[in-house]
Amino acid sequence: MDLRVINPNTTAGMTATIGAAAERIAAPGTRITAVNPDSGPVSIESHFDEAISAVGVTEEVRRGEAEGADAYIIACFGDPGLLAARELTRAPVIGIAEAAFHVASLVSTRFSIVTTLGRTGIIAEHLLASYGFTGHCRRVRAAEIPVLDLEENGDAAFERIVAECCRARDADNIGAIVLGCGGMADLTARISDAVGLPVIEGVTAAVKLAEALVGLGLQTSKHGDLAFPRPKPFTGRFADLSDTRYE
Amino acid sequence: MDLRVINPNTTAGMTATIGAAAERIAAPGTRITAVNPDSGPVSIESHFDEAISAVGVTEEVRRGEAEGADAYIIACFGDPGLLAARELTRAPVIGIAEAAFHVASLVSTRFSIVTTLGRTGIIAEHLLASYGFTGHCRRVRAAEIPVLDLEENGDAAFERIVAECCRARDADNIGAIVLGCGGMADLTARISDAVGLPVIEGVTAAVKLAEALVGLGLQTSKHGDLAFPRPKPFTGRFADLSDTRYE
Amino acid sequence: MDLRVINPNTTAGMTATIGAAAERIAAPGTRITAVNPDSGPVSIESHFDEAISAVGVTEEVRRGEAEGADAYIIACFGDPGLLAARELTRAPVIGIAEAAFHVASLVSTRFSIVTTLGRTGIIAEHLLASYGFTGHCRRVRAAEIPVLDLEENGDAAFERIVAECCRARDADNIGAIVLGCGGMADLTARISDAVGLPVIEGVTAAVKLAEALVGLGLQTSKHGDLAFPRPKPFTGRFADLSDTRYE
Amino acid sequence: MDLRVINPNTTAGMTATIGAAAERIAAPGTRITAVNPDSGPVSIESHFDEAISAVGVTEEVRRGEAEGADAYIIACFGDPGLLAARELTRAPVIGIAEAAFHVASLVSTRFSIVTTLGRTGIIAEHLLASYGFTGHCRRVRAAEIPVLDLEENGDAAFERIVAECCRARDADNIGAIVLGCGGMADLTARISDAVGLPVIEGVTAAVKLAEALVGLGLQTSKHGDLAFPRPKPFTGRFADLSDTRYE
Amino acid sequence: MDLRVINPNTTAGMTATIGAAAERIAAPGTRITAVNPDSGPVSIESHFDEAISAVGVTEEVRRGEAEGADAYIIACFGDPGLLAARELTRAPVIGIAEAAFHVASLVSTRFSIVTTLGRTGIIAEHLLASYGFTGHCRRVRAAEIPVLDLEENGDAAFERIVAECCRARDADNIGAIVLGCGGMADLTARISDAVGLPVIEGVTAAVKLAEALVGLGLQTSKHGDLAFPRPKPFTGRFADLSDTRYE
Amino acid sequence: MDLRVINPNTTAGMTATIGAAAERIAAPGTRITAVNPDSGPVSIESHFDEAISAVGVTEEVRRGEAEGADAYIIACFGDPGLLAARELTRAPVIGIAEAAFHVASLVSTRFSIVTTLGRTGIIAEHLLASYGFTGHCRRVRAAEIPVLDLEENGDAAFERIVAECCRARDADNIGAIVLGCGGMADLTARISDAVGLPVIEGVTAAVKLAEALVGLGLQTSKHGDLAFPRPKPFTGRFADLSDTRYE
Repeated sequence: MDLRVINPNTTAGMTATIGAAAERIAAPGTRITAVNPDSGPVSIESHFDEAISAVGVTEEVRRGEAEGADAYIIACFGDPGLLAARELTRAPVIGIAEAAFHVASLVSTRFSIVTTLGRTGIIAEHLLASYGFTGHCRRVRAAEIPVLDLEENGDAAFERIVAECCRARDADNIGAIVLGCGGMADLTARISDAVGLPVIEGVTAAVKLAEALVGLGLQTSKHGDLAFPRPKPFTGRFADLSDTRYE
Repeated sequence: MDLRVINPNTTAGMTATIGAAAERIAAPGTRITAVNPDSGPVSIESHFDEAISAVGVTEEVRRGEAEGADAYIIACFGDPGLLAARELTRAPVIGIAEAAFHVASLVSTRFSIVTTLGRTGIIAEHLLASYGFTGHCRRVRAAEIPVLDLEENGDAAFERIVAECCRARDADNIGAIVLGCGGMADLTARISDAVGLPVIEGVTAAVKLAEALVGLGLQTSKHGDLAFPRPKPFTGRFADLSDTRYE
Repeated sequence: MDLRVINPNTTAGMTATIGAAAERIAAPGTRITAVNPDSGPVSIESHFDEAISAVGVTEEVRRGEAEGADAYIIACFGDPGLLAARELTRAPVIGIAEAAFHVASLVSTRFSIVTTLGRTGIIAEHLLASYGFTGHCRRVRAAEIPVLDLEENGDAAFERIVAECCRARDADNIGAIVLGCGGMADLTARISDAVGLPVIEGVTAAVKLAEALVGLGLQTSKHGDLAFPRPKPFTGRFADLSDTRYE
Repeated sequence: MDLRVINPNTTAGMTATIGAAAERIAAPGTRITAVNPDSGPVSIESHFDEAISAVGVTEEVRRGEAEGADAYIIACFGDPGLLAARELTRAPVIGIAEAAFHVASLVSTRFSIVTTLGRTGIIAEHLLASYGFTGHCRRVRAAEIPVLDLEENGDAAFERIVAECCRARDADNIGAIVLGCGGMADLTARISDAVGLPVIEGVTAAVKLAEALVGLGLQTSKHGDLAFPRPKPFTGRFADLSDTRYE
Repeated sequence: MDLRVINPNTTAGMTATIGAAAERIAAPGTRITAVNPDSGPVSIESHFDEAISAVGVTEEVRRGEAEGADAYIIACFGDPGLLAARELTRAPVIGIAEAAFHVASLVSTRFSIVTTLGRTGIIAEHLLASYGFTGHCRRVRAAEIPVLDLEENGDAAFERIVAECCRARDADNIGAIVLGCGGMADLTARISDAVGLPVIEGVTAAVKLAEALVGLGLQTSKHGDLAFPRPKPFTGRFADLSDTRYE
Repeated sequence: MDLRVINPNTTAGMTATIGAAAERIAAPGTRITAVNPDSGPVSIESHFDEAISAVGVTEEVRRGEAEGADAYIIACFGDPGLLAARELTRAPVIGIAEAAFHVASLVSTRFSIVTTLGRTGIIAEHLLASYGFTGHCRRVRAAEIPVLDLEENGDAAFERIVAECCRARDADNIGAIVLGCGGMADLTARISDAVGLPVIEGVTAAVKLAEALVGLGLQTSKHGDLAFPRPKPFTGRFADLSDTRYE
């Protein structure tokens, strides 16, 4: 299967990090194509960054459709453009936040989230509520690390994340920790070793869930609200989207 | 005050309709500027349309900031880009769906929503949950009218909406009806007369809530998760957003 | 418009304070009439005080109806008698707790409440749940000030409220603070300046929401459970309510 | 034990009906004193009726305290003045709606409510939410009978209630039915026989719960928000409440 | 009435403790038969212990049916086998956790739970959610005492429980405390005296609720999902359950 | 990997059906061992059947541990003994109900469940609430087929299930259907073809989720409430469980 891993931000280094993590976990038959949009923010740390990045996500899905992708992963913890992406394809589309929540709830009864910047915690809270996991999450914590520090300042970032994870382990009455940033994908094993309980990271979780859905022969429902968008004119910089017919 | 009414789709006729409805309800001191982005879909009837339209919403807010707008309304029932827009300004930003829900809950204990296409009902359900109104809404109904039919085929659309509203009135055990599309802004009074209970429409509701917030001297909180976005590079078609400093 | 601001307690000084705050914020066309019942508690600090005060609220609404009031505000943070009052009139009726919650949710994603006595926190919790704002409120805090100290001992009260608000700002992960007592109406600006984030006070919020509803031409629904009460005999001290026909 | 059964309305016939039902179910050691306030509505069919009736409920509790009552029942399905009454005494106070919900959830997994007038259904919905039983109740139904018809027009009322109960039994996927009016207290056995599943009525349920609490030696908590009200002046018709010290 | 108090674990000493507590609280007409299964764990401190103990609970209910029991109590705070037991009989069946929650909510607005081992807190959380009391419980606390220490090491256990209850009283903003283990049944009065607010223990609460249901003539509904199980073959060690017909 | 598929009932034919469905969907590296306990009910159609079957589930997990199983599936839609099983092993354990809910929520926004007997619908409702999917499920429907009819009377059962699925598709405003019985595992493809929207069946879903968790190297958390049970004596028919030390 051709699994398209979309990094919604435009930092190629992070795309490579995410892609490598995906390849390490992928099944033999899974071909990982890690991509990022040409256009968008270099990191996603606000509702605004997220809104802009959603356009790039849909662009990459449309490109994937042309190239015959079998499934898609949206590799930003806010799952930007998730439902929009699902409308554009019959292939499964999975966000790394939802993937992490689903998986964490299968190996523990309660978990906490450790994310980068506190200001993005509200995004996690909204996703927990929308997906149904509010009751499973004890607390959303932040290590207060700018996303790109994960690339540029890895050791210091690692230490801060581990320290916050240990606080969660000791104070939150949990069984597992969810890492709240795609950029942490390569740190998971080291963090888990350091913290001593299951640490779930969304990119790897999403790869395996995508393989699961494809293996089940399940596709995104086209019955009801995830049906293909009705073709219509778009204007200006989005004119290229006009009257597209999706199949 | 300068109230910027942003129609997130690019149909000028609908922008005019919305603007006229806003002007009819605006207080003497309120100057309505009805705008729509240059770029985006001609109507918003899916998660995909909504995701694309959010970019235009943020563009119009940035333009408004340059021009000194005092408040903003997002005049699409999905409230596209609402939190992103709030990050970009100290001025109040109000979505017409949230406005309608708030107002409906002040004049009734329970309401139903009558929207255009059934496939967009899920968007309303998600907003009700996110804003806290799930318990106040009895049912989300659809008249199954494409949005632009409100412009091009007004009488037939009116009849279908009234028919659905009457079904809601008679079956749903409600006190009020919320109209689920900005394009219905000019029909509210006629619908209310025909149906015989309070009918709340979001554009007009949002104008009065925006006047209320400005009158209170309240601004969007910059303490916490609605703080201005951190400046950073954007690439490609969004390069113009790079390193913007918001105040 | 004639806006009747009902202080449910019988302390004329607080009625004056509330009325003055309402007048400062009211639009030019809004005539504020601040009233309190002849009968009731001098302050409302318990479920019992609140139950008694609800009678006075309904008395003031009935008086307002005779005098042609256009809207009503119930200026106690427990919103005593709110639904009863709505049954008695077609005019909008707004409680200051609900007004504050609605407004706070439009300028922040999460807020905390700072009220007077801890024992009244449960009233705020019940209102948050009933109105749908439980998920928006991080914490209900109390400065442990008897209500009348706001009148009689203003500076000390102010200091305690500011101190509690600062604790909320620093610990609660919020964007705004809601003041939990009508008697704080004249302190809002000073508190907001001292605390440095949006501080929402219910009396002023309710004035602007009442103006908004009247501006929209919306009235309390008489379809369903807020219909006028069925006329019937009342006995004893309430005999004067017998067989009243409401229009 | 002296169990004070308070009928919040002032219809002596209904007080007698309720008292007789309570006596039939009471344990040998339980002395039932069925009372109603001198002042209040002859029936409770609206939020307004309920607000007024709450005063009478607190008056009867204060009288009961003077006379040494051991427990109280508030025999109207809206539980008017419940928390206020609890503040006034160490004795247990039970509302018939809460009693019926608690008991119904012990003999079935889901129940429906059959009440008198549809307009009062919202009161039941609010109580279900406040007490935590929203998930246990499938549907709130109304037989559309004015409360006093239960006294004056018993056979016709009985037929309508049974018919609605049978609809609930056949359509609602339930195990039990809760009767939503204290005036139905004498009909329970006949209704249950006619409908063929457990029918729970609040007055009888509350008598047994009150006996249970007294038997347990449990009293209303005075730690926290149900502590006795702080003494204070009351004015006008409520001056008699001034500076009362509760013990 | 013959009230069967089933201790789901097989420690006779705890059965005696529970039985004695039940007898002390039982009404004159109530004959307490305290039993425990022949087969099962000596204490219940995990989901596994609970699953095994549920079999013994159903065995004791079947024995009780043969002997004509009028009601049953499941005297373990996880309420193991509660719904299964209800299917097997028309008699009321009450779990001590649900009993404690119901009673606590009648004498306070909010409570905390103090249980034995932290690992069992999740069981209490699940029950609170299933029964509808999540909103009433502030916090689930553990004294970290193995269950049998209550038998073997009573004084030390008592001190730890009181210490945890005092922390709950001082920190949790509650009106009552629920004891989270049947083995604490004989300590309730002493704990309550030491802590100074209402302390609810499930065995005693369940005895009075069982008497209440029997007094009401209410039985477990056989309409719907608590109907008697369909007779069918069972194999192996459960062959004795085959083709049983329940009445 | 050695994936143990546990059919909690003792009908070998159903175990074979479930095992065959699991093998068809399993990845090359996955060895399916379909088992059922020696002891238990021939079908699970009630809370009682479920409670008894949980013992057999734990027995099969203990056997699997001795034999080195890598993951477990509990192949009954009530997920009997799920948390108990998780305590007994570090290996992942997945219930087919939870598996189906998770997967359905990844390919649709809302789903309905079609189960066998109406009386088991309450079990699905409890699981939806416990797992967080109440908001995702529109309706729980029953085809009213005894479980073993799926084995003995397949064609008639198939027709009834398809008919109910079509009613769900046409009336429930859903994107997918969840089949509510492990015995339907071999019918999924035919049902999906007949109904025309994604149909999710739990056995196959659980196989792929188990492969996903093993592929991720994730194990059931032993930090907190899923830690191995404390060794202790068991009596009578469960004496063989005494003092077991789990690793």
